[in-house]
Amino acid sequence: MDEFELIRQYFTRASTDTDVRVGIGDDGAVLRPAVGRDLVTVVDTLVEGVHFPANLGASDIAWRAVAVNLSDVAAMGGRPRWMTLALTLKNTDRRWLGEFSDGLFAAANEHNVSLVGGDTTRGQQVVISIQITADVEPDRALTRSGASAGDLIYVSGTPGDAAAGLELLQSNALTTDDARSLADRFCRPSARVRLAQAIAPLASAAIDVSDGLYADAQKLLQASGVGGQLEVNALPLSAALQATFDTARAREFALGGGDDYELCFTLPAENESRLNNIASQQNVSLTRIGNVTAGDDFVCTESGERFEYRDSGYRHFNEAEKSET
Amino acid sequence: MDEFELIRQYFTRASTDTDVRVGIGDDGAVLRPAVGRDLVTVVDTLVEGVHFPANLGASDIAWRAVAVNLSDVAAMGGRPRWMTLALTLKNTDRRWLGEFSDGLFAAANEHNVSLVGGDTTRGQQVVISIQITADVEPDRALTRSGASAGDLIYVSGTPGDAAAGLELLQSNALTTDDARSLADRFCRPSARVRLAQAIAPLASAAIDVSDGLYADAQKLLQASGVGGQLEVNALPLSAALQATFDTARAREFALGGGDDYELCFTLPAENESRLNNIASQQNVSLTRIGNVTAGDDFVCTESGERFEYRDSGYRHFNEAEKSET
Repeated sequence: MDEFELIRQYFTRASTDTDVRVGIGDDGAVLRPAVGRDLVTVVDTLVEGVHFPANLGASDIAWRAVAVNLSDVAAMGGRPRWMTLALTLKNTDRRWLGEFSDGLFAAANEHNVSLVGGDTTRGQQVVISIQITADVEPDRALTRSGASAGDLIYVSGTPGDAAAGLELLQSNALTTDDARSLADRFCRPSARVRLAQAIAPLASAAIDVSDGLYADAQKLLQASGVGGQLEVNALPLSAALQATFDTARAREFALGGGDDYELCFTLPAENESRLNNIASQQNVSLTRIGNVTAGDDFVCTESGERFEYRDSGYRHFNEAEKSET
Repeated sequence: MDEFELIRQYFTRASTDTDVRVGIGDDGAVLRPAVGRDLVTVVDTLVEGVHFPANLGASDIAWRAVAVNLSDVAAMGGRPRWMTLALTLKNTDRRWLGEFSDGLFAAANEHNVSLVGGDTTRGQQVVISIQITADVEPDRALTRSGASAGDLIYVSGTPGDAAAGLELLQSNALTTDDARSLADRFCRPSARVRLAQAIAPLASAAIDVSDGLYADAQKLLQASGVGGQLEVNALPLSAALQATFDTARAREFALGGGDDYELCFTLPAENESRLNNIASQQNVSLTRIGNVTAGDDFVCTESGERFEYRDSGYRHFNEAEKSET
């Protein structure tokens, strides 16, 4: 099977999107953008052994690869439309490819995203780069830089579950329903695409939680040139997380664990009631976890008292750099 | 140096493109597309040791990674605008990164392409995926599927040089100016972006020559549902190629060697004089090398007599598959 047959066999599926004028199979795709909207483009790479365990199922790997990109689209308030796939493989294992493409299309179809192009190559480890093109009302994209002192800091869902799930997965500790549900949060993250489009007109800034809630909130605050305070007692810890770990560990997962793909956003206080309406309409938990402050300090509190938290948010290259110096 | 500092230091350069509403540093880029044009999106991956020798200079690697994508844009008749970079690195070698980013921006700046986003990750080998967004007049993109029997087959430039250059490079045989100029064609390919936009209204179909002229012409003919005849005496062999190799080897490089990033296209005969005007205006050699025929046979001739050519066009995975079965 050569590269071209492989693409045909596993990655060419009919799209009902009439705005895809030319799809997979030419030198490039031709797409008709919606009139009068800005484009949002995101790209995220998953490397075997770095971003997912080598033994994770191919379907879950593909799902994650799409979801992490959808999450970036969500963080910009965008409507996802089209994606490309750059896939580096060690070999052509048909069963793996079949499962991978099933997971890929399952994740994409949830948000009506069409695969319009890609490139398959051979390498020493699996590397998956997905790029998604989305659109948004002109000058209405959510950025990281719009937060002001006095805004409220919110997070969606229950952060920490995915990191806890990964730890349980890696230590073969999936012995309870709670543990399995946490692992599922790692394997099948659900990007907050619909929620983000609804809150985009209300929020002042947003970021998706991929490197850990504390680290990502800090990036948002820095980009906005402000500080913040985060109340650890307000962290929305899931029942499964609390049933499986003690409070200290659960908080660590919630603050430092990446891979949740929840949204962290800031909100002018006067928009809080409209936000609550969205939360009930969409049946999503949205939790106020802190406040934006003047200055550039970002502190954690516990019942208002200073709480020392040392960030262990995941960053690529950190380890490599340390071992070099 | 963590991932974020690395991106800031090497890949954040000011763009003068006011249509880049939000550039590098947020969850995604926000771009304002030109009114009333279709988008063209392409993606191509280079893997160390597969698509370039591990000892190729970082600046050349980056240049090539951009050029192969620009070449896909050219093959669609597009105007390149924005690119993203997914870069997997083994380590953070500052000198390598400095050279890489210089080569990247040099290639991009030639065509006013802005880097608007990306992702850097760590892995066992260097993997570079670049995605370029271009635009084109609605429904005027060049595809592979428009050729008709009676059209003429053309190629730009002098195919074969890059493959010959790579062979000389890998065998440390850069002893003459000719050899060095051939190697330069591999290291610094020049995508036919400007040419392609000029010929798009005249040509019936196009493909860029990345896998070898014969293999790529065949793909075009198959996509168009037609056959063809290619006259090997008409192949435009460069003086450097002819001075360095005998005719048989030179033809093999021209027919089977990839990496040229020239354009192969088909042309209704009545457009030939307008094509010649473009060739002189742009000072590009455009050579008629054959004809599109009815049916599905694609044959080579030498002075009109059947010429047996066995395609060795490069395909990923071929080798892997052979060793499996």
